[in-house]
Amino acid sequence: MDNFIWDKDRKARTGIAEAVFCLHKSAQDLHPIIRFNIENSTPVLLTRLSQQQWLALPLELQNALDYDECSETAIINGSQKLSTKNDVCIVSAGTSDQAVAMEAKRTLAFNGYQAPIFADLGVAGLWRLMEKIDELRQYKIIIALAGMEGALFSVLAGLVRAPIIAVPISVGYGVSAGGNTALGSALASCSPGILTVNIDNGFGAANAAIKILNQFSE
Amino acid sequence: MDNFIWDKDRKARTGIAEAVFCLHKSAQDLHPIIRFNIENSTPVLLTRLSQQQWLALPLELQNALDYDECSETAIINGSQKLSTKNDVCIVSAGTSDQAVAMEAKRTLAFNGYQAPIFADLGVAGLWRLMEKIDELRQYKIIIALAGMEGALFSVLAGLVRAPIIAVPISVGYGVSAGGNTALGSALASCSPGILTVNIDNGFGAANAAIKILNQFSE
Amino acid sequence: MDNFIWDKDRKARTGIAEAVFCLHKSAQDLHPIIRFNIENSTPVLLTRLSQQQWLALPLELQNALDYDECSETAIINGSQKLSTKNDVCIVSAGTSDQAVAMEAKRTLAFNGYQAPIFADLGVAGLWRLMEKIDELRQYKIIIALAGMEGALFSVLAGLVRAPIIAVPISVGYGVSAGGNTALGSALASCSPGILTVNIDNGFGAANAAIKILNQFSE
Amino acid sequence: MDNFIWDKDRKARTGIAEAVFCLHKSAQDLHPIIRFNIENSTPVLLTRLSQQQWLALPLELQNALDYDECSETAIINGSQKLSTKNDVCIVSAGTSDQAVAMEAKRTLAFNGYQAPIFADLGVAGLWRLMEKIDELRQYKIIIALAGMEGALFSVLAGLVRAPIIAVPISVGYGVSAGGNTALGSALASCSPGILTVNIDNGFGAANAAIKILNQFSE
Amino acid sequence: MDNFIWDKDRKARTGIAEAVFCLHKSAQDLHPIIRFNIENSTPVLLTRLSQQQWLALPLELQNALDYDECSETAIINGSQKLSTKNDVCIVSAGTSDQAVAMEAKRTLAFNGYQAPIFADLGVAGLWRLMEKIDELRQYKIIIALAGMEGALFSVLAGLVRAPIIAVPISVGYGVSAGGNTALGSALASCSPGILTVNIDNGFGAANAAIKILNQFSE
Amino acid sequence: MDNFIWDKDRKARTGIAEAVFCLHKSAQDLHPIIRFNIENSTPVLLTRLSQQQWLALPLELQNALDYDECSETAIINGSQKLSTKNDVCIVSAGTSDQAVAMEAKRTLAFNGYQAPIFADLGVAGLWRLMEKIDELRQYKIIIALAGMEGALFSVLAGLVRAPIIAVPISVGYGVSAGGNTALGSALASCSPGILTVNIDNGFGAANAAIKILNQFSE
Amino acid sequence: MDNFIWDKDRKARTGIAEAVFCLHKSAQDLHPIIRFNIENSTPVLLTRLSQQQWLALPLELQNALDYDECSETAIINGSQKLSTKNDVCIVSAGTSDQAVAMEAKRTLAFNGYQAPIFADLGVAGLWRLMEKIDELRQYKIIIALAGMEGALFSVLAGLVRAPIIAVPISVGYGVSAGGNTALGSALASCSPGILTVNIDNGFGAANAAIKILNQFSE
Amino acid sequence: MDNFIWDKDRKARTGIAEAVFCLHKSAQDLHPIIRFNIENSTPVLLTRLSQQQWLALPLELQNALDYDECSETAIINGSQKLSTKNDVCIVSAGTSDQAVAMEAKRTLAFNGYQAPIFADLGVAGLWRLMEKIDELRQYKIIIALAGMEGALFSVLAGLVRAPIIAVPISVGYGVSAGGNTALGSALASCSPGILTVNIDNGFGAANAAIKILNQFSE
Repeated sequence: MDNFIWDKDRKARTGIAEAVFCLHKSAQDLHPIIRFNIENSTPVLLTRLSQQQWLALPLELQNALDYDECSETAIINGSQKLSTKNDVCIVSAGTSDQAVAMEAKRTLAFNGYQAPIFADLGVAGLWRLMEKIDELRQYKIIIALAGMEGALFSVLAGLVRAPIIAVPISVGYGVSAGGNTALGSALASCSPGILTVNIDNGFGAANAAIKILNQFSE
Repeated sequence: MDNFIWDKDRKARTGIAEAVFCLHKSAQDLHPIIRFNIENSTPVLLTRLSQQQWLALPLELQNALDYDECSETAIINGSQKLSTKNDVCIVSAGTSDQAVAMEAKRTLAFNGYQAPIFADLGVAGLWRLMEKIDELRQYKIIIALAGMEGALFSVLAGLVRAPIIAVPISVGYGVSAGGNTALGSALASCSPGILTVNIDNGFGAANAAIKILNQFSE
Repeated sequence: MDNFIWDKDRKARTGIAEAVFCLHKSAQDLHPIIRFNIENSTPVLLTRLSQQQWLALPLELQNALDYDECSETAIINGSQKLSTKNDVCIVSAGTSDQAVAMEAKRTLAFNGYQAPIFADLGVAGLWRLMEKIDELRQYKIIIALAGMEGALFSVLAGLVRAPIIAVPISVGYGVSAGGNTALGSALASCSPGILTVNIDNGFGAANAAIKILNQFSE
Repeated sequence: MDNFIWDKDRKARTGIAEAVFCLHKSAQDLHPIIRFNIENSTPVLLTRLSQQQWLALPLELQNALDYDECSETAIINGSQKLSTKNDVCIVSAGTSDQAVAMEAKRTLAFNGYQAPIFADLGVAGLWRLMEKIDELRQYKIIIALAGMEGALFSVLAGLVRAPIIAVPISVGYGVSAGGNTALGSALASCSPGILTVNIDNGFGAANAAIKILNQFSE
Repeated sequence: MDNFIWDKDRKARTGIAEAVFCLHKSAQDLHPIIRFNIENSTPVLLTRLSQQQWLALPLELQNALDYDECSETAIINGSQKLSTKNDVCIVSAGTSDQAVAMEAKRTLAFNGYQAPIFADLGVAGLWRLMEKIDELRQYKIIIALAGMEGALFSVLAGLVRAPIIAVPISVGYGVSAGGNTALGSALASCSPGILTVNIDNGFGAANAAIKILNQFSE
Repeated sequence: MDNFIWDKDRKARTGIAEAVFCLHKSAQDLHPIIRFNIENSTPVLLTRLSQQQWLALPLELQNALDYDECSETAIINGSQKLSTKNDVCIVSAGTSDQAVAMEAKRTLAFNGYQAPIFADLGVAGLWRLMEKIDELRQYKIIIALAGMEGALFSVLAGLVRAPIIAVPISVGYGVSAGGNTALGSALASCSPGILTVNIDNGFGAANAAIKILNQFSE
Repeated sequence: MDNFIWDKDRKARTGIAEAVFCLHKSAQDLHPIIRFNIENSTPVLLTRLSQQQWLALPLELQNALDYDECSETAIINGSQKLSTKNDVCIVSAGTSDQAVAMEAKRTLAFNGYQAPIFADLGVAGLWRLMEKIDELRQYKIIIALAGMEGALFSVLAGLVRAPIIAVPISVGYGVSAGGNTALGSALASCSPGILTVNIDNGFGAANAAIKILNQFSE
Repeated sequence: MDNFIWDKDRKARTGIAEAVFCLHKSAQDLHPIIRFNIENSTPVLLTRLSQQQWLALPLELQNALDYDECSETAIINGSQKLSTKNDVCIVSAGTSDQAVAMEAKRTLAFNGYQAPIFADLGVAGLWRLMEKIDELRQYKIIIALAGMEGALFSVLAGLVRAPIIAVPISVGYGVSAGGNTALGSALASCSPGILTVNIDNGFGAANAAIKILNQFSE
């Protein structure tokens, strides 16, 4: 038999700071979590915190949160200094992807990494992507967002050395509704080196990037 | 009440010559159909006629057919002269798409239209597509074939004036097995002007092109 | 290495004027796009612009748009003259398909093509279709709309020389809810020459027709 | 508490004679069942008895069965006299539906009902169906078979007074493979009065027809 | 070539009176249809007419309709006399099936057939079904409704001589949400003689019963 | 931080003896596992060991295994004494379920529990089930197997006090092929107290029964 | 023929007291059921009774119910004494599972079994589960709840002797929306001894546990 | 307009050497590709080259390939020196994952990275994973393989700082057949930092790891 010593600190264990997923949580659930972390000066990221949930908090808690309506994220005791190296950037296919792009950007910032967003580079207007491709090539990791048919993932992965973290987006209607077509495109891509996260999961994409950056930075 | 006069000649009614879909048909089913058409000098296209089905025919019938093993098509009394205008071409993403590309090409030829195949222009190596793009732009209609994630459809449709007839191909494994991911990509594309046919349906893509060409040619 | 010269003008490149897909876009997203195009006299088509989105615009912008509530489309600087040849018509199976029929009609008109709508020609009352069939046969291209089981696509394709652009409609309940049964019917049809676009995609059907007409007109 | 008296005789209880579904059954399973029924002169229908299973039986049992290879059915002690009224007919869309059509016909015959097969009346050649429609209208019940997009069900149901028992067929490839598209078409039809059975279930369609005929005949 | 004479009267052609499916129809669509039929004394059945749609009609039209909120049906110029023979009954598995049961009952009544509803005979309390089974056996046709796992269809079909028209119901949650599990159960049943219609399609079940009854009554 | 002491003995930890799942395993994989356990006199159950895999073993290993072809299981050093209490029985709907029934029975026997099989009690012939119901009520736990529509699970659960462990079976064709309809029926049942395992998972059903019996026996 | 005597008392027959599933039931449906049971002092459990449904009841009925908003359950004439043995406990992976956990706990309490809830033991923080594992091992049966990927089921089943009743939860988004991924994980688990109920079915899990406990307690 | 200069060398452009996907390719397709690369001393990796395809090559070509039957990979002019740093390791849940593990290992080796395989660390025997966890923590990137329910991905991601590249495996039966349940588990995981590739795509997982390592190594 072995003795195994558990390390309960998630940050130490996995390199990722604590986050609270607020979807399906009631005001009663959220209230004490937020107050506890504010009082303890613990850095915490809240994701999928709808404006409605935020407005249901007492005013003092509302004000204590760095809340962003577009990405539905809130930060308690966030990072002060951001890495300014070209570690990671975010590329999106359409303006409808902005909420998820912001979720990724805010998650990276919360963990100390600055990430610019390159918006509206979908393949229907390939020249827009081509105009930016040399700039994109400066980044170590690229988080790419696309809904509908998700062709951006394959095109981009064939043009750069960076690993692509693909985030399928649930925009669209008919066969693209819900994001499954874009998800399939990311997974079935003919371009090697694409890594996929769940539909609309900007938070997960950012965390994976952070894990990579943490592993290789010192 | 109205009187309606039926036109029983499919060629006259729809502009498309008779074809026989041989999948699931037994030797007993095929035998009389083939003999009848040979004896009547009717031009007929047989599709999905496997090599095994062909070899099960009497030798005289085998020899009377212009059979192509790759595309599993056979032609009885085919067209003598092919249109040499740049009406339609066939673009494929990978070498695994060859059987379906040939089915389309043979169907077009049977109806009098010559169509060159541009193979292996998948988006993972975008420069290969770009080298050919000016040549592709000379064609009135483009039939495009792609399996896996089907990104070729969207990229191509954003670069040319021709309508794209997309044929999803059932190559691949995991989420791309069976061709549904490529089918979704064609239907959900962010590039306008893509028209989709059933998975692996080179015959259908060719027939649609023929209907368009027949309508506009005189 | 090759030098490739990009042509940034979508209209010149693909023959299709610029359009803005408004689903999922916020008022902040739409506002500057609309103002910019009005000020620059650029012809632009807005699709999936809900009445709610339209009413959220400043009154001056509302008035500057040629808005159609049924199809949720708006046109800025639309085409003045419509082609009056029998280029394309729109056939629908039921009155519930009207919104998508209008989206197709308005997209065609925006690009200069007039297209009449033949409504309520579903196959449950086949004589209604038969009464119109000679008139339908005058058109070069037919855009057909059908929800539920989508049998109209196959019946129509067997009766006319025109290529059929099939638009599956998401009406119905149970197995036809969402439009997948009609989509499957269009793709699996036993009648050759059917070309399919995404569910409810009147805009895409019209664009494909425009690409064909542009290619063959001069 | 209630006392309930069970009637163990399936024929008496449901009006349908005993049948044995042979798919997945081994030779050891089938052997005693067949011998028992032959020895007891019980009328039994065996369905999905593949030629391979039949050939694996002892020669005396093989010979004692009225075996039909096309429909994979065998009859022990079948009905001698068939009703010759126009009770029910079978309409099929393509020649690939023959096996299922024969399963239905043999099941009906086993229960005493004669049913002619009208083959190859698919909607791609609508005039073939129209030529026969007056004859079809003589039947009380119509069993219709169609694979691919299954448009035949809707067209037929709109033209006749008879209830349509729709049997989706698993022929085809891509989206029609397995028969689900035809199944969806039958269920989602815009024509009222269509009743659906499982894919390839000629046996079930025949049994339902028999139940109806038994109920109304005396 | 053949001359074909179309019979435009649906009632004469199919035995089923005209009905209007109101789902997805706007007030503008419904208004003239209703007024026209009232003025012409045509018997018409309106289905899926929500209370909201009904209340949006002018008061005089509201009053002219025989409207039933539970089944969302309205009748214009309905049948006066109902057949009082034991032609058809409706059996439901749970009280949640009431709306669909009423849609079937009202459709039958509109066409002149009276049909009692036997409610709450699900198989979890099999004795309730058994108490009624002798009564149910008096009916020529049974329309059965069940959601969740739909076991009622199979149990009932094994106990009676009547053909069962199975209506899967979209009640439930998890895997039974939407009615697909009950639909699968009806189609895959081990009991012969089950005929299936679309999920929640009480109207379709009634129409099929009417077609059968019309065929065999005189 | 905590110290956690691992208990590596699966039998001690979970109450279930070691088993080897042989599907997808090559002869090279299986050979050393089997030899090791024979030499160490460890009781081991091998599941999904096809006859082909078994015949590919050296003859001495073949003979050392207690192999059952029907269930594709082999036992090394099996249990000598079986509990003869009425702990658990196995009920199957059709003779096609025999392989899975035997897998459950052999797994139970390997762990010391005797379990009789009650075969062919499907609901299409409800009286067969009713004849046995008093006998079935003697068992503490019932493992029930059914393919097709799986109605047996619901009917049985409404008649007995024992918890039902439902094993959906992959027999059938069309919508029941693969077992998903039966799986859905088990999960969506209107009868409380049904517990479900994976399709064809006789092994899993037996293990769950063993865990229950172990927990409550002393 | 057999005489079969039906036992109409569900509690006596199956060991489970009567419950009413309120989803889809109108106020008119619920009103008499509740009043009848209150007046007859029958113990009844109401599940899926939304706060809205509860508030729509007359005040006297509201007050007569022991209503719990979180689990949407109400109890009429509940159990007075709870078993205090370590029969069963409830383990949940996240705080979002609370409603279903409470449904299970209340159903157990209504039938006389006390069950503590161990919340927030998901595998992302495995040490939290490990801290509690010795305590969990004291229970005869464990009901486990998990949404998203449902890994908790497999981990837990590998660590304890108790049978696991897995309840997949419909929390999450993208591929985990609706609970199907967690359901698949429970069914496909590599750990033997997991028994699965429908998504979000805390009631069913509790009933199965009650059936087991009833069978083995005396 | 912009001028864009294409870089045709895939290795230079993306950091990944050329590979040939052999599934669906005929002998005629493969022959010239292999000969060309051997003659030009180009390093090439062939994936999904079945033993049958390999044996169909001329003996001289067979011998010129470094072929591995288990992973169905062949290497032409492979890498001489492997990096011996703890860059990446491969963790598999079961012995059935070996072929995919070897595909990943061989792809990494072909690109110059050595990667050990840690086999059989599934969560059903969690202590095996725990015994190795400190060793696994030494690696910068972990490629994890799991079929069935894929719980390994979540457990591992919660215990280490390395990003997890998850490869769902298509082993199993019932709901886990084809690998979709494991794929869903990887995407829906509650543990942040999991990156997913297509089912059975050991090649893609390795390429993504290579892209990361290339980006951060100098």
